[in-house]
Order: sequence, then structure tokens, then C-alpha cells
Amino acid sequence: MPASKQRVAILGASGYSALELIKLLLRHPNVEITALTTRQTEPRPVGEVHQSLRGRLDLALENLDAAAIAKRADYAFCCLPHGASASAAKELLPLGMKVIDLSADYRLSDPLEYAKWYGLDHVDRDNLKDAVYGLPELYRDDIRTANLVANPGCYPTSAILALAPLLEAGVIAPEGIIIDSKSGVSGAGREPKPHLHFAECNENFAPYGVGTHRHMPEIDQVLSDAAGMSVETIFTPHLVPMDRGILSTSYAVPTGDTSTEELLANYLEFYAGEPFVRVLSGLPATKHVAGTNFCDLTARVVRGRVVVLSVIDNLIKGASGAAVQNFNLMCGVPETTALL
Amino acid sequence: MPASKQRVAILGASGYSALELIKLLLRHPNVEITALTTRQTEPRPVGEVHQSLRGRLDLALENLDAAAIAKRADYAFCCLPHGASASAAKELLPLGMKVIDLSADYRLSDPLEYAKWYGLDHVDRDNLKDAVYGLPELYRDDIRTANLVANPGCYPTSAILALAPLLEAGVIAPEGIIIDSKSGVSGAGREPKPHLHFAECNENFAPYGVGTHRHMPEIDQVLSDAAGMSVETIFTPHLVPMDRGILSTSYAVPTGDTSTEELLANYLEFYAGEPFVRVLSGLPATKHVAGTNFCDLTARVVRGRVVVLSVIDNLIKGASGAAVQNFNLMCGVPETTALL
Amino acid sequence: MPASKQRVAILGASGYSALELIKLLLRHPNVEITALTTRQTEPRPVGEVHQSLRGRLDLALENLDAAAIAKRADYAFCCLPHGASASAAKELLPLGMKVIDLSADYRLSDPLEYAKWYGLDHVDRDNLKDAVYGLPELYRDDIRTANLVANPGCYPTSAILALAPLLEAGVIAPEGIIIDSKSGVSGAGREPKPHLHFAECNENFAPYGVGTHRHMPEIDQVLSDAAGMSVETIFTPHLVPMDRGILSTSYAVPTGDTSTEELLANYLEFYAGEPFVRVLSGLPATKHVAGTNFCDLTARVVRGRVVVLSVIDNLIKGASGAAVQNFNLMCGVPETTALL
Amino acid sequence: MPASKQRVAILGASGYSALELIKLLLRHPNVEITALTTRQTEPRPVGEVHQSLRGRLDLALENLDAAAIAKRADYAFCCLPHGASASAAKELLPLGMKVIDLSADYRLSDPLEYAKWYGLDHVDRDNLKDAVYGLPELYRDDIRTANLVANPGCYPTSAILALAPLLEAGVIAPEGIIIDSKSGVSGAGREPKPHLHFAECNENFAPYGVGTHRHMPEIDQVLSDAAGMSVETIFTPHLVPMDRGILSTSYAVPTGDTSTEELLANYLEFYAGEPFVRVLSGLPATKHVAGTNFCDLTARVVRGRVVVLSVIDNLIKGASGAAVQNFNLMCGVPETTALL
Repeated sequence: MPASKQRVAILGASGYSALELIKLLLRHPNVEITALTTRQTEPRPVGEVHQSLRGRLDLALENLDAAAIAKRADYAFCCLPHGASASAAKELLPLGMKVIDLSADYRLSDPLEYAKWYGLDHVDRDNLKDAVYGLPELYRDDIRTANLVANPGCYPTSAILALAPLLEAGVIAPEGIIIDSKSGVSGAGREPKPHLHFAECNENFAPYGVGTHRHMPEIDQVLSDAAGMSVETIFTPHLVPMDRGILSTSYAVPTGDTSTEELLANYLEFYAGEPFVRVLSGLPATKHVAGTNFCDLTARVVRGRVVVLSVIDNLIKGASGAAVQNFNLMCGVPETTALL
Repeated sequence: MPASKQRVAILGASGYSALELIKLLLRHPNVEITALTTRQTEPRPVGEVHQSLRGRLDLALENLDAAAIAKRADYAFCCLPHGASASAAKELLPLGMKVIDLSADYRLSDPLEYAKWYGLDHVDRDNLKDAVYGLPELYRDDIRTANLVANPGCYPTSAILALAPLLEAGVIAPEGIIIDSKSGVSGAGREPKPHLHFAECNENFAPYGVGTHRHMPEIDQVLSDAAGMSVETIFTPHLVPMDRGILSTSYAVPTGDTSTEELLANYLEFYAGEPFVRVLSGLPATKHVAGTNFCDLTARVVRGRVVVLSVIDNLIKGASGAAVQNFNLMCGVPETTALL
Repeated sequence: MPASKQRVAILGASGYSALELIKLLLRHPNVEITALTTRQTEPRPVGEVHQSLRGRLDLALENLDAAAIAKRADYAFCCLPHGASASAAKELLPLGMKVIDLSADYRLSDPLEYAKWYGLDHVDRDNLKDAVYGLPELYRDDIRTANLVANPGCYPTSAILALAPLLEAGVIAPEGIIIDSKSGVSGAGREPKPHLHFAECNENFAPYGVGTHRHMPEIDQVLSDAAGMSVETIFTPHLVPMDRGILSTSYAVPTGDTSTEELLANYLEFYAGEPFVRVLSGLPATKHVAGTNFCDLTARVVRGRVVVLSVIDNLIKGASGAAVQNFNLMCGVPETTALL
Repeated sequence: MPASKQRVAILGASGYSALELIKLLLRHPNVEITALTTRQTEPRPVGEVHQSLRGRLDLALENLDAAAIAKRADYAFCCLPHGASASAAKELLPLGMKVIDLSADYRLSDPLEYAKWYGLDHVDRDNLKDAVYGLPELYRDDIRTANLVANPGCYPTSAILALAPLLEAGVIAPEGIIIDSKSGVSGAGREPKPHLHFAECNENFAPYGVGTHRHMPEIDQVLSDAAGMSVETIFTPHLVPMDRGILSTSYAVPTGDTSTEELLANYLEFYAGEPFVRVLSGLPATKHVAGTNFCDLTARVVRGRVVVLSVIDNLIKGASGAAVQNFNLMCGVPETTALL
């Protein structure tokens, strides 16, 4: 463990993921938060933007350029919108900073796929080649030595942790996988929109982005890597009237005879020693992982089909907690620091 | 009961009160909805604006002027913002229409008070003089013959029904009355705002407008009328993370010895025969009146103070249901039509 | 339309479905509610059991035997638990009453299936043969002349309306159909249980009964009838932290080339003239059907799979509204009476 | 700071306060949790009772007697029901343990008052005399040296922190103080009850215990101590459909001319240096303190009355967080340990 603390900057610090990240880092014995950035011109005390932080962090959100950030910090967590994030990282990396990007900019390895799904030319193809997908359960060793980590999307984390072990083991077929996901509303961000208005989404349950959500190609890419062959999933996200939590119900066709017991044994072996994946014999519930970095999961064989149920807190294991887990790996402190 | 139906226009038909009003009027045997207006230039089918009405009402929201409205309809329900409502009513009344105004424009009888609290000069002082405050439990006879009814605010309805009987009977003192009110979020309207964003107001309880809410002078005016002397209340509204419902907890000093039993007897006498006020011996709950035009209330004497608890559905008895109740009185059909 | 009103009894009147049923029937011009039963020995005013009904219905819940019920009423709506319902209907039918059963007792036509899934021998095999499955969109003509209607389960209604048209048309294969359903909490009934405790299921999303829910064989039976061949579905129910509403997301393999447009055209043709099914081009949401008897649905082709999204209010179209729709058919009044 | 960790037992570990306490203590560098007790005979792994703790704490809930507890632990946190708590503390204290009692058993200093409000003879009058009321902002020095601390009730904490400074300064009159409080549902405990059933209290707002709640004499006692004269409050609690959080709106009559500015200045002085009280110029909201040990408060003068608004998380500052704050004081570690 390094004797001194790491100096940390959070870019785009006004959103919900940034707030959770700040709360986690305030408890981190190896971290000093030294900069919070915003794209607004006027600096504002962080306690005005996040009222829950009043009296806990005496720092302003400022409009800082890359040089100013690099002077103050060793690590940058980017909570910027896609596009803006790659522009920032492109400038920070040559200045010697390590970057953990919570946007989608470095998740898809193929810039053409990125352009197709995000409607943007990728501005930082050079660094994209070296970016590591920040899911420790699959890519832990690469994360340790990475300078640029692409923090996974929330839905992909819940789906990949559920399906990668079975694909890697060849237990399920790569064709026709269905991922039916349900998310709390905080995942949609902090900007007021009609469908996120309380009186619209309270007491309401609805699908969105059916067959068109940008997390679909991300899931496919990582699952294809796990399977060693091309995987194309059918992904359906829904909005649940609650603050936080994702449950993904995944359906797959087994490649041979299997049973609930075999599936659970497979998970227990795959996730042996993992600090943040809990394999359950009972059914998971989002509330049991709320506010934590855990992924709880289980599986069942129903009428010859494999049904996998996995839950995470979308803001923690699906965003800020995973970012801290990646940070811990990158700077060589115990992986669970500030996360239990 | 008139042989033919009344033709009804709803102005400003895109909001939540208008939606509830349309649903009530669709069940009304004496009503034909003939016009829905919007201030947007392009007409839109009502089913696009209110998806729950698809297949139930084949009408467009149109940008209509007063003349066009008056050709199509006998009654106008104004669900417009304050200011806009008085401008509309001012034109409709001379064309022979009867107007039920759900905005605040005709509630305060003194235009100077209106200017002070709403920041606007009143554009229709002439009709203001003849407007009747549309609370049937207090002003039923005036409503029957009115051409212009000012539908009460939601908070005032809950507070006035709780306090007017005791003030009129001289049971409580007019000084130092406290009204601590709690409302579901639909009362704040349909426009997305940061504090109405789901992830902000879900799992949150907060006060707003402490000592500055525009419903305070409205409550004072009507309670002063009931008391026969000046009443100045302390009014504190709060937002409850639910769709609909208001509970007001009111505190007053009794003028002499009193008891819970006497208070209840007083209410039972005052509200005898009222179709929509239910005097309870137990405690009220907003859910028991949700979706209905009822006001449930009870009172207790606690350590020498009078505590009154009253609940309504803010969108029904606090807005659209009261408007229909007023309409029923104005056109001479049974007062409960379409409301039970 | 009959000149006189039908006299109606509601058996097991203390639950949520019964409450919704009473509210609907209070608006029904052809109904007089004449009896409410409970299995408790002491009669209680209905307003004590359902506080929202105070002042609206002056009737007691009583422990009545079949003969007493048959003297007072022509129609019986059974809201009893399974087992108790068949015992009651078995006695009421020979007394000349018509029965609409909201329990599961007459839904499965094979008593062995019933015994397997409900753990009970069926006590009324004779009448079971003549029971009609009360989904008007599929069995309208049979319902008109039935003496005993088995009102469908809530999940089955949402799933069958979504899938039957495509199976009947041969557009989707009968194998491997997945139904991922999400329901509000009222569907679990009124009895307090740990997992239905507010602080447990609020801000929580969780699956239950994966592969073991009793609505699975009911769905299979009706879809098999529609398909003309055996259908076995994979059904996964989940609990949503809201009062009411079901959304089912169904996945199927098309039998040949198809498109979103073809699927929608298929639905529009199948449901032409249906008063309570709305085929949408956009996506459905439970809130748009809350408090109504509508089923909203749409479909998409995603990566070669058919995805169908359907919503109902579990207490209305999924229970009490469907019961009134069936009642309307049985007694020959317009099918939409009291339901719009 | 002691070199070694304190060994800690939690009695009555199956409830919500115990769960929050365990989560806080797991992060505490000076604590080792060594015993969890239950009154059930069969030991159960804590992860079965609190599923969110799976994999985080490898300990069973056991039915332990005082001697067994005292062998394992130095400090006992009692999360037992009232009555049971005093019986336990009475045995633990003579064995040399320090006790932090989260029940009501040692809050009221007068055993006759206790008998009156709780319906029980106090079984431990001896220790009652030495118990310290565990509100550090008022009784910090006494807590440091206490062997038995009575952790305050949740409502009292929110009300006392709001009113004690003004009473102590003589700014408000002790007569006629009104405390209108609103609490999330977790405060009602984990046992399923009809009024806590999700479908009953979701989308509902209701008062309870009007004028009869047991927290009223507790508030009076502590405020009387602060005022130096007898205080009798009117206390009205309400249930908010959310998991956690309390907001108290308190009303008082000022003793002389005052202003919002003076009130705020008074609070700022009184709470200068307090780590967990934040005096706001804006309005508080429960969500800003959720999951924290903070109390946020502000005040306004409205029409000559003082209105104070204060919020806490009922499970943290209103229970477990306060218990840890007291523990920190008792064992001489920094007061904020494990709480920021």
C-alpha cells in the first residue's frame, strides 16, 4: 500500500454517479479528492450542487482544463457524457494521469460500432486500443496495469456477470439469449425529462429502448469474448418506480442436459474468491444489494431452459463502486477498500 | 334534468387536472365534450397528449379563440395558468358562456391581494366582482345561479372544510391557527422540474413555500368570511412522495372548554346531508379518498388544543371533482352526478 | 336490456378484488348489490372493512349460506380463495344462480392438473365440465350463455391477449415461448406477509415463483387452445413496488419472415371491434391503463425474435373489470357498461 | 484511541435498527462484533435473517444469557422491545458491561411516567437513576462517563434538536409548542401488520397516535430540562410512504420580537463545532440526510410565529447512528468514527 494518498479528480461531478463516487471516496483511506469539475463557467461549492455533502467536503465544482487537473491529481474519474469523456481523457492521458471513464466512450473496442450506436466519430482511437474493460471478475489482471479503464455500463454488468460463466463453460448456446432487465430510475440521470417526472413514472412500469438500447452491443462484445464466438443478445430494458437497483432475468438454451444444481456449482467455481459476487440458492432481490458493490445471482432450469437472475445496485456495482474497485486494483490497494 | 346534454369545452386540456376532469365528464350523462383547447398552434389528438384516453375520446386539442369556443360549447372549464385564465374568461362570459375556472384568477376577491401574491394586475376586475367561490359546502346557493365560479385551490379545500365549521360556531379562536399540509406530487403539475424529478422526490419528504404559499391568503379570505372576523393562518405545505392526496393537520386554540365529542358533534351537524364530507370518529388517510370527491375529517382535543385532520384527493375534490360538483349545481342536475 | 336490475351477491367481500368489484358495480345501472359475504361469524358494516366505501354502500358483510344467498341474489361473484370457491359454486348453481368465479377453481379444465398445481382434489368436477373461461376476446359467445364463468388470472390475461393472436395465426412457434411478467403488489392480496411488508417491498424489485407459479398451466391451456397444439411456456413473475398494474414481456420465435408492421397488422385485425384492447405503435406503460379495463399492447421484431409487450390493471382487466365484462355478456347488457 | 478493539454484542439483532447498526459497526476500526442475540431458540446465520449481510459477517444469531454475553463482549447494544431491554441491562451491568439501550426503557427518568405510557412497571429502577440520555448535543460530557446510555427515540431527536436551543435561550415560550412530525415506514419496525402492508401504506399519507404517542413525554422531559421549566408539547406523528427519514415541523410562540436571521444565528452559535448538525438557510429535505447521521434544520418567522423544520434519518441519527456516536464517546475514540 502506498504510504501517501492518491490525489483524485472527478470530472463532471454534478450527476448521481459522481455523488455516489464522492461518498465512497470520502471513506477511502488512500484517497484525497483534490478537484471536482463542471462545464459551467461559474464555480459552485459542491454542497450547493449535492446538498447531502454539505459539511463533508469543502471543495468547489470548477471549470478546469486538462493542465490544471493534471497538476492537482494523479487519477481522474470521468463522469462526463459520452463524447465529452473521450475528449477529456485524450488530453489527460499524455499528461501522465490515469483515467477511469464512467462514460461509454471506451467500452466498444470497434470505433465503427461506437459510431453506429452513439452517432459520433470516436475522437480518441489511439487510446481506445489500450483501454481495458473494467469488469474485475473478467479482466482483473489487465486492469491492474491499465492507464485507461472503461467502466462497464450498469445493465451490462448485471447481464455479463450472469451469462459469461455459462458461455465460457459452454453450458449455454450463444444463440437466442434473452436479457430482460429492470432498472431503478436513477440510472436515467439527473436531468428532468417528461418520462422521469415523478407523477409520470411513480406507480408506473414501462419498457423503453426495446431492441435499440446502446448497452446491447456492449453486452454482445463482452459475452462474445467470454464465449470465444459471436453472441447476439435480445435486450429489453424497463423502468421500475424506485431509486436504485437493477434485476436482469436472462434466458438461454442449454447445450446439453443440465440442472439447477449444476448451474449453481458452475457459478460457485467461477466466482470462488470473488469479493463482490454472491451466488445464492434462493432468489435475489435488488434491496439486498442496495447501497453495496455486490452482485447477487442464481439460476434455475425451467422446462429445459436456463433462467438466470442477477441483481446489482446500478449506481454502485453498476457505476461508482465498480470504478472504485478498478481504482483499487490500479493503485495496488486491497480490492475491497472503501467498498465494504 | 335537462332533456339535452350540455356542451362542454375544456381550456388548457393538457394538464393533470384536465385529464381527471375529462375522465369524470366522460361518465357524465348530461355532458358532451365538444372542445379541448391548447395554446400550441398544431392540433393534436387528445390520445397523444393523454395516452390513457386513447380510444375513449375522439377529439383534438386545438388552439381556439373565444368565438370558436362559444360556438361549440355552453360551459367552459378553464384549466389554464393564472393570468391566462382571466384573459379567456373575460372574453367567454360576454358570449353567454358559463365558466368554471380552475385557476386562481377569481379566488381572491381583492385585486390588490391578487396583484401582491400572483405578481400580476388582474385583467378582469369587472367579472371578479361577480365570481362565486366554488365550495358547495359553504356557497351552494350562490353557485347555483353563478355564471362564473372560482374553483377552490386544493390546499384551501382541505383546510377550509376542516376549520370553517369551528370558526362559524365560535368554537375556536381566529388567532394563531396553524395549517400543516402535506400533498402528493401531482398537485405540482405536469411540467418537469428538478425538484419533481423522480430520483429527487421519490423517498423524500420536504417542505416548500413556508409562509409564502399563494394558498395562504385564499384560506384566510374564506375563513374570515366564515368567522365573521379577520383570520390569519400560518400555512406550511409539504411534498409527499405519492401521486395524489392531501392531508391537512390544523391546530387551533378553543375559545372555551371543549372535547373531542363536542367537536365531532359540531361537524356532524354542520355537514348533515352533505354528499361528499364524511365525519370520522377514527383517523383519516389519503388513500381512503383517492380517486373520489370525498373529504374525510375528524378532530381531537390534545392538551387543550384542537387538532383537526382532513383529507381529500387533490385532483378530484381539490380540483376536477369540485369543478364537476359546481357544474352539476349550475345546470341543475343532481349534485353527485358522475361523482359516485 | 332487462327492465329490472340484477340482484348481485359478492362472496368473500373483504379483499382488494372485491373492493374494486364493488366500486365498479356501484356505477352499474343494471345492478343492485344485495349481499356481501365473509367467512367470519360476526357481521361487519362494509365501511369498516373497506373504509373508502363509507357512505357509499349501506350493507354488512355477513356469514351467509348458499340458500340465504340464493334468496337474495341472481348472480354471485366469488372472490373466495381457491377450494372455498368451488365449494360455494357447487351449492349455488343448483339453486339457479349464475356464478362468476374470480378464484382459480374452474380455470384448469383437467382436474388432475388442478390437483397437481393447487394441491387439492377438485370438489366440483361436474360443473367444471361446463365452466367457460371468461376471456371475452377469445370466448365471447360461450360466455353469453354460460351459467358458470371462470374469470381468468391476472398474469394469464396479460400473456394470453399478447400471444393468442400470433399463435392462432401461426406467426410464432409454440415452442420456447418466454413470458417475463411484472406485477404491482395488490395482486398478492390483502393479508400481511413479511415479503409484502412496506419496508421490505418498497424500493425493491424481485422475482418469485420462478418456473413454479400456478398461472403457468393456465396460460399453457388457453394458448394451446388458440394454437391448436400443445404450448408450454416459461413463465417468470416479478413484484414491482407499486399498487397496481402488470406488464408482460413475451418472447417467441417466428415461424417465418415477419416484421413489426406485420405483427401490428395481425393484432389490429384480430382485435378489430374489441372495446378493451388497444393496439399501440408506441410502447405501453402500466399507468396508461391503471384504473381501467383496457389491455394495451404492441410488438417488435428484434434480431429475428418476436417481442410482445402488454399491460393491464391487474385488479380491473385482470380481475374485477373482466368479471363485470363477463357479467354484462351473461345478462345481455352492453359489454362496456360501467367499464368506461 | 485504544490499541485493541472493543468487543461488541448486539441484542435483538433481527430488526431494522440492528441491521443498520451492524452495517455501521462493520466499518468501525475499533469494533469487533462478537455476539448477536435473538430470543428464538434455534441459532440462525445472520445472513439468513438479514440477506444483505451475506458474505459480510460470519456470525449466528443465538439465544444467549447474560453470562454468555458478558464473556464475549465489553459493550452491549440493546435493540430489544421495551421491557425486555431493561431485563437484559439489569443483568449485564453488574457483569461489568457497558450498555447502550435503543429501547425506551431508560429514557423517562420517572418510573411512574414510564408505567403510565408503557403500561409496565419498570424492572430496573436502580440503574434507571444512573442512565444518561444519549443525545450528545445536549449531554455529551455525561455520556463520556456513563455505563448505561438511553439512546433517544427517533421523533424526539428530530424535535429536541429543533427546539432545545430556542428554549434554552428563552427565545420561545414553553407553552403551546406544536410538533407535527412525519416519518418513513421503517420506524414502525419489521413485523408485518395490516397498516404496514405495502398495498395499504403505499400511496397513502396518514396520521396515527394523535395526542397519545409515547414519544410525547420523552420530548417534554428533555425540553423541560433545556428550558428550565415545564414544557408540554402537542405532538402529532404521521406515516410517509417511504423507507426512511423524519421531518418535524415545529411551531412556537416567540417570547419577544425575533426574526429568521436571529433564529438562525442562535442555532449557529448553539451548534458551533457539532459534527452532525447542519444549520441551513434553505429548507431541509429528508433525502439529504438519508443514510447519514446528520440532522439538518432551519427556522422561519411566519406571521409572528416561529416555524422550525428539522430532518434526520430515523434509522441512523434517530437510532443506530446515534448509538454509535454514543459508543464513540463512551470508549474515547473520535466522535465521528464510522459515521462519515
